[in-house]
This record gives sequence, structure tokens and C-alpha cells, in this order.
Amino acid sequence: MTGHILALSGGVGGAKLAAGLAAVLPPEQLTVVVNTGDDFEHLGLTICPDIDSVVYALAGLNDTVRGWGVAEESWQAMAMLKRLGEADWFNLGDRDMAMHLGRSWRLRAGESLSEVTARLTGALGIPHRVVPMTDGRLSTLIETDNEIMDFQRWFVGEQCRPVAKAIRFDGAGAPPSPGFAEALARPDLAAVVLCPSNPFLSVDPILALGGVRETLLALKVPRVAVSPLIGGKAVKGPLGKLLEERGQGQEGNAAIAGHYGKLIDHLLIDRSDDADAGGLRERGLSVTVTDTLMHGLADQTRLAREVLAAAGLQQPA
Amino acid sequence: MTGHILALSGGVGGAKLAAGLAAVLPPEQLTVVVNTGDDFEHLGLTICPDIDSVVYALAGLNDTVRGWGVAEESWQAMAMLKRLGEADWFNLGDRDMAMHLGRSWRLRAGESLSEVTARLTGALGIPHRVVPMTDGRLSTLIETDNEIMDFQRWFVGEQCRPVAKAIRFDGAGAPPSPGFAEALARPDLAAVVLCPSNPFLSVDPILALGGVRETLLALKVPRVAVSPLIGGKAVKGPLGKLLEERGQGQEGNAAIAGHYGKLIDHLLIDRSDDADAGGLRERGLSVTVTDTLMHGLADQTRLAREVLAAAGLQQPA
Repeated sequence: MTGHILALSGGVGGAKLAAGLAAVLPPEQLTVVVNTGDDFEHLGLTICPDIDSVVYALAGLNDTVRGWGVAEESWQAMAMLKRLGEADWFNLGDRDMAMHLGRSWRLRAGESLSEVTARLTGALGIPHRVVPMTDGRLSTLIETDNEIMDFQRWFVGEQCRPVAKAIRFDGAGAPPSPGFAEALARPDLAAVVLCPSNPFLSVDPILALGGVRETLLALKVPRVAVSPLIGGKAVKGPLGKLLEERGQGQEGNAAIAGHYGKLIDHLLIDRSDDADAGGLRERGLSVTVTDTLMHGLADQTRLAREVLAAAGLQQPA
Repeated sequence: MTGHILALSGGVGGAKLAAGLAAVLPPEQLTVVVNTGDDFEHLGLTICPDIDSVVYALAGLNDTVRGWGVAEESWQAMAMLKRLGEADWFNLGDRDMAMHLGRSWRLRAGESLSEVTARLTGALGIPHRVVPMTDGRLSTLIETDNEIMDFQRWFVGEQCRPVAKAIRFDGAGAPPSPGFAEALARPDLAAVVLCPSNPFLSVDPILALGGVRETLLALKVPRVAVSPLIGGKAVKGPLGKLLEERGQGQEGNAAIAGHYGKLIDHLLIDRSDDADAGGLRERGLSVTVTDTLMHGLADQTRLAREVLAAAGLQQPA
């Protein structure tokens, strides 16, 4: 195929498909734009959980057993931080901490997040473009009954327990990063892929950047999403809970499709949710039913090929 | 004994005696003032090598085999930092890094180095006062033939190879920290102890603070130094080289005594340097010849008692 693929990704689930796309596409044909709404400052470090998940997956450094972070991780610094009385609600592995350190001091020295991310991916031998959604600040906030919480306090600190009455984006309208804007404007753009990430928490922040939703809607290329649901449920994370709290009476893939609306024209769903296909097609969506749970690089690569096929760009393997 | 002991310390050697004094004296009778001239910023971390050496020694966390840093250290973050292309000339252990992190973010949040140090020592269960020499900035610089280098670049990066034509203190005259000033002004001050640290690099920065040398000279209490030399040579570090380059024609303990001048009235020297004792006494110094190499807490405690005895404050054990 020719043409450029723009993939929008959150953390772990999205990172798996991003790694599959990177395995299938040459570097010049892929831009992975990553959510930074969950980024936060902790112990003086700028932590970018979704960028790191994508970077670890593309570098082959991700821990596939634990499901997040770096493989062969150790926790010596964290144990010492606890002993020093520092906050221990967010677990920092030793190798992971090196990423945060390498990023944080360079941001403080004046590099943009795009520049730092390019530096880190380059150092780890990732030839594909991995770009933050913005070099500005757009922060995901969770409005609960009692307060408005930073995302990580809700997600990790409170383990998603408080009901999310609303999800807010502080800094909505922030400009897309240069690499994101460039990909959106490419004359050879061939498809947009919404990775199987949380629509509310991982994709919506990207869509809340200045002009992004409008630009995507106006694009004359296929927009393909992979559902993050398996058997009507989220593989991990708070998506299931959010769908219940925010699905507006719809369930499963109907809620996903309802949420994305005209933003997507093709949805890949898991075989276990085969029953959803008819209703989705009635909405006017093109649907592929396949195995969307990715256990390893073989699954990731196969699903990437199926995504490209759904976009009319490649035959399924 | 009653009365307060003020100990001035650099890194590893001084830290051993400081730990001995802490083992012998109750918390209210000891203030350890630590050199911060070697402190530096690295990868966004504020690193205080001498404070950490003293803190690790007093907390019993110091690595006695390697001779520096934390025991049972691991190096996962450092390996990852190298992989990310970050500077690798200064080795950061994982547990050590936690100290730097815990300190750096709080300094950036506005705490003084004194406050942060009190917090860290408190968290590690150290009941004695360990205070930085200053909360301001006094940086040790090494003037070589070609350039003026930050201390750590010379000490670690260049392994002390370039001849030190001069040692400069950028920020000389900075104010002593509150805890240091308080100890100097105590009516119950009973003795000043210059720990067996490098006179040029570890003690001189302390003396270069505003008013410190004058105040020490005017004190009517014993001022006791422990020589850092064993058999006329430094146990470790660049002292031997500096003595050759900067001893002004004197050697061994004569050079140490000549450098300190009227600042000390008692010097403890090692048995292996027994031959130096006569000349030192001719200078008007009171001299104790003993075993100054400290292999463990028993040695540290014994030497601490001998220091107190030399100050007329306690019988030798």
C-alpha cells in the first residue's frame, strides 16, 4: 500500500495495536499520536503514562505479564522513597523512572514534549513517529460527587472507585503537536485509526484539542476504530464502569459507536460481540468481526493488517 | 560529659567519624555540619554527595564494601538512562536516586536544603542534627591549566587527572545554614571537631562561608582535627595529589597542620605517622597518636571517644 496512516492511541491496549501497525508499516507510513491527558507531575517527574506504554510496546520493552510498564522491572527506588516518607500511591519502577528522569530534566531545560519523545524513541531504536497529542497542556479531570480530581489520583490513587459524574479536559482547545498537525495535513494521508483505547479517557482528550474533531470529520479518508470491548466488557481499566455511568442507556459496542458517532465509519469488534454487528451496521457503520484481543506480536500484526484491510488499503493476511 | 559538639564533615571519611560521634553522644549534644560545595545538578536532580554519605553512615545504610553510596544498591535506572543516551559519567544507584528525587522535588517546591535534610534524616530515624553548611550556594570549582571545572566533572568525570592549579569557591561568603549558625552560637558549645575529610575540598568550603573562619578562631573551646592521612597518604580520593600540588613544600601531617594553622589546637594522627608527632608538637599542637583508620562502628566509636578525650571532655574508652 501507499499512503500514510494516522493512529490515535491511549495506553496499553492502544499501544498493542500501534506496535502491530509499526510491525506492518514502514516508518514513513505511520504516525502514532498519543494521549497526554493523563500526564502528571509526581515527585518532580513529568510522567506520561500513555506515551511510555506506546514507547515500551514499540521498543519491545513492555512487560507482557504484568500488562504495564517495563519488562524485568525492579522497585528499589520506590522502596527507598517509601522509607523516606514520600508518596507511594503511584508505583515507579527503576527502569521506568529513568524514562521519567530523562524526559523531565530535558523538558525543564526547554525541550518540547515532541522533541523529548523523538529523542527517547530514537535512543530506543524506534524508527516510527510517536508524537504526543500536544506540546501544550490538556489535562483530564474527573468530576466526582465531592470534588474534581486529577486523573491519576482517581485512576491510581482511588482505583476508579468514585463515580465519574463528568470527565473534563482542562486546557481543551490546546493546539495539536507539530507532528500531529503535520499528519492531519498530509496529502498522502490514507486512513485514521482509533486504537482500542478508552474512548472517554484516551481518545476524547485527543479530540478535544483545537480543531482536531472538525479536521477528522472533514477528512476524505477511512476512519477505522477498533473496539476496546471483549464480550461486552473492557479488557482492563475503568471503561466498563464509565460505560455504565456514561453510556446514555446504550451498552457494549452500541455505546462505543454512539459515542464516536460520525467520527468513524468502520468498527472492528471482537468475535465474542458478534451479536452487536447487526445493530452497528444498521447505524451505517461498516463492521469487521475478528479476534481483537492481542496476546502478542502475532496477534498485533494480524489485527493491524485487518485494520488496514478495513480501510481498503491492504488485503487481510 | 555535658556540652555540645560541633563536627564539620565532608563525605565518606568524615561520615565515619560523624557516625562514631552519633553513637557516643545523645542527639542534643551533637550537630554535624556537612560540606555542600560538591553539590550539583544532574539530570534534574540535586545531588549532595557529602550529605548523603553522612546520612547513609548515620542511618547504617552505607555500603561498607564499595565504600560509598547505599548498601545493597542496584543500578537498573542507570542502565536504562545509558540506553536512553543520557550522561553516564556519574553513577546513580536506584536507592540513591530515591534520595535525590525526594530531595529535589521538595527543594523545587520551596523547602530549604536544611528543611529537606531534616525531613530525610527524620524519615530514616536519625535522631542527631545533620545540617548542610549553607542553604545558599557555595560551589567548589577546580582551576586546571585549561579551564575552570565544576568539582564533580573534575572528581568523577575526569577522575581528578587534571592538575588543580587552584581551588575556588564560587559563592564564598554565603551564610551558614540556620543549624550551623545556631551551633556556632551555642553557649554550651564544648568543642569543634574537624572530621578526617579532605581539608582542601571538604573543610575549606565550610570555612569559606561568611564569618565561619573568624567565629571558629574566636571560640574559647577546643578545636580538634582528625588527620585524613594514614602512612602519610590519603585513604582514598584526591587528597594525596592535592597535597603534592598544594602542600607548599610540606608533606604529610605537617602540610595538614600548616593548612589548618591556628584553626586547630589538637590533631589526632595515625600510628603509622608517629614520626610526624614531634614536629607537630613543636608547632604548638597537642597531638594524639592512635589508629585513625575506621573499619566499622567499633573503630568509629573508639575514635569518637578519643576525639572527645583530646578535647578534654571524656576519658578514652
